[in-house]
Amino acid sequence: MEAFSDGVLAIIITIMVLEFKVPEDHDWGALVELGPKILSYIFSFVYVGIYWNNHHHLLHMVRNMSGRLMWLNLLLLFWLSLVPFTTAWMGESHFAGTPTALYGIILMLAAFAYWLLQRAIIKQHTSDSAFVMAVGRDIKGKISPFLYLIAILTAYVSPWISGFFFVLVAVIWFVPDKRIEHALRSR
Amino acid sequence: MEAFSDGVLAIIITIMVLEFKVPEDHDWGALVELGPKILSYIFSFVYVGIYWNNHHHLLHMVRNMSGRLMWLNLLLLFWLSLVPFTTAWMGESHFAGTPTALYGIILMLAAFAYWLLQRAIIKQHTSDSAFVMAVGRDIKGKISPFLYLIAILTAYVSPWISGFFFVLVAVIWFVPDKRIEHALRSR
Amino acid sequence: MEAFSDGVLAIIITIMVLEFKVPEDHDWGALVELGPKILSYIFSFVYVGIYWNNHHHLLHMVRNMSGRLMWLNLLLLFWLSLVPFTTAWMGESHFAGTPTALYGIILMLAAFAYWLLQRAIIKQHTSDSAFVMAVGRDIKGKISPFLYLIAILTAYVSPWISGFFFVLVAVIWFVPDKRIEHALRSR
Amino acid sequence: MEAFSDGVLAIIITIMVLEFKVPEDHDWGALVELGPKILSYIFSFVYVGIYWNNHHHLLHMVRNMSGRLMWLNLLLLFWLSLVPFTTAWMGESHFAGTPTALYGIILMLAAFAYWLLQRAIIKQHTSDSAFVMAVGRDIKGKISPFLYLIAILTAYVSPWISGFFFVLVAVIWFVPDKRIEHALRSR
Repeated sequence: MEAFSDGVLAIIITIMVLEFKVPEDHDWGALVELGPKILSYIFSFVYVGIYWNNHHHLLHMVRNMSGRLMWLNLLLLFWLSLVPFTTAWMGESHFAGTPTALYGIILMLAAFAYWLLQRAIIKQHTSDSAFVMAVGRDIKGKISPFLYLIAILTAYVSPWISGFFFVLVAVIWFVPDKRIEHALRSR
Repeated sequence: MEAFSDGVLAIIITIMVLEFKVPEDHDWGALVELGPKILSYIFSFVYVGIYWNNHHHLLHMVRNMSGRLMWLNLLLLFWLSLVPFTTAWMGESHFAGTPTALYGIILMLAAFAYWLLQRAIIKQHTSDSAFVMAVGRDIKGKISPFLYLIAILTAYVSPWISGFFFVLVAVIWFVPDKRIEHALRSR
Repeated sequence: MEAFSDGVLAIIITIMVLEFKVPEDHDWGALVELGPKILSYIFSFVYVGIYWNNHHHLLHMVRNMSGRLMWLNLLLLFWLSLVPFTTAWMGESHFAGTPTALYGIILMLAAFAYWLLQRAIIKQHTSDSAFVMAVGRDIKGKISPFLYLIAILTAYVSPWISGFFFVLVAVIWFVPDKRIEHALRSR
Repeated sequence: MEAFSDGVLAIIITIMVLEFKVPEDHDWGALVELGPKILSYIFSFVYVGIYWNNHHHLLHMVRNMSGRLMWLNLLLLFWLSLVPFTTAWMGESHFAGTPTALYGIILMLAAFAYWLLQRAIIKQHTSDSAFVMAVGRDIKGKISPFLYLIAILTAYVSPWISGFFFVLVAVIWFVPDKRIEHALRSR
């Protein structure tokens, strides 16, 4: 399951670059025009990187692979597979309201699928296991939907405010869950 | 063999998204126009997901890898590699008769290749093994061609009727074969 | 090395499908126009499949991975990476002379790189090993360049004659090397 | 981590070929026009090949995978993911000043990320380990930035001079680090 997921994530992260159409001009000005697309790409690269990172740790906690888990994993990959499209639309539109809001919605749905997957994996462990206690309170997971919601709504006000909240979620998740990492090592 | 197959399936599932051309407008109306393409994508995502899921279980039952098995596997991947094209055509045409019928034909041929692969793997097991008994009657495999055939023919009548039968096949196969899963675990 | 090679081959085989532009018409006639492209795709799918199959067996005979081997492997992948381009050109041109000749040249160069890789791996084994004896005479490898050469030259005469020789090489290599397979198993 | 990195590198190396648009003409002259693009592709193929090769060796020296290492690895992949774009721009512009300079800048940033990754892995080893002593002086790593800088600046003078320095860096790194290879084997 990890090989397939890793493959899908690797492709998602790489095909986003296909959206950078080769400019006709051959000066630095041509790159400036690509600016919003590049910024949009950096955002998504970091987000997919975060998912890969955490997903990687999470899958190591799977005790037995069930059909249910496989489909929850596919649900997560489904939302993430739409990231290249929303990334391109957001960049192309210079962070216009609707494309930026859609970007947030897709990320929020991916986060929800991740939460479902995590919950299904938790059920395979006893409630006093190091892993369950590590993700137990899951403050990140509880705050994220609210931050996404603010980012989605403020997309119509200003891309800067919306972008701030996207960056905030990224920063929160940037550091991989030390506790899972620790729980893994102490097994 | 599984790494290669997983790679191909991961790419198939992801390049389908490349068909979502970035809309020129920046409002929700632009997404409505993409509607049939998105619906078509969801269909194929689920179908490829089902294949990945069952294929994954099936390959675990392989006793020894022969050239014959490798080519049957490639035959399956060949038909599945055409799914992104038929998906795009079906979506682009708003589920017109011929593209929808072709979609069903490709899926039916993939199902046939899967059946050949399964049969070749069954031959490596004794007839009283848990695996052979699990897939032995293979009711799913026997019903599917008929359902595909109905979906193909009704594509010219109404996309809704045709779509119903596509969904029906998907639902039947959605749940991974509990019996193979069980046979695997009890080895 | 195998994971990387498998990845590249999986991508090569799948991105060829991106050349099938979605037709504007929605009838079977639209597919007829795609005919030469589809035929061209089938050819390349089988060829890349053959390489994957034999490459897979060959890499299992590697004793120790050196930089030299890695670069010979990359040389093979380089030529194979050009297959999607020549496949598209040959199909698009309805098997015109030059594109078909180029197709043969690229395949011949890939075959040469494969031969170099095989020779480097043979050197890691004693001359009386089952593997060396298996590929020792290597009749396939010796005949192939001549068949490719004929296919390349006759491309300007008739695509049918040229195609016949391409099919001939494919048929020769289609069956994976039973002897390597056997040598592998008896290790 | 290696599977994901290998996947990304495999995709990077393969999607570059998508930039070779199928020519409308069907003669050898059409290929001549593609010349700069093909040359540009060969460059990048070799560069990504070098990274894959050295990266492969480097990752084998990782003692324990931390979040920090994962992100340094992603930083390297980020710069490399921009290679297909700069490759296409450089080829399309027939090695014009700015695109060639950008090509060098991206490669220099990738080299810097590689150096950061290497440094982080070195810290996991005692200073007298075979691995640390092997890369210890790291003459290649110290010379490369200067050569890249010269290649970037001379891009505005002549693509030939600039190209010479790109080739020079490639040649230096072409041979995989024998010492790491040796250190690996003697573990």
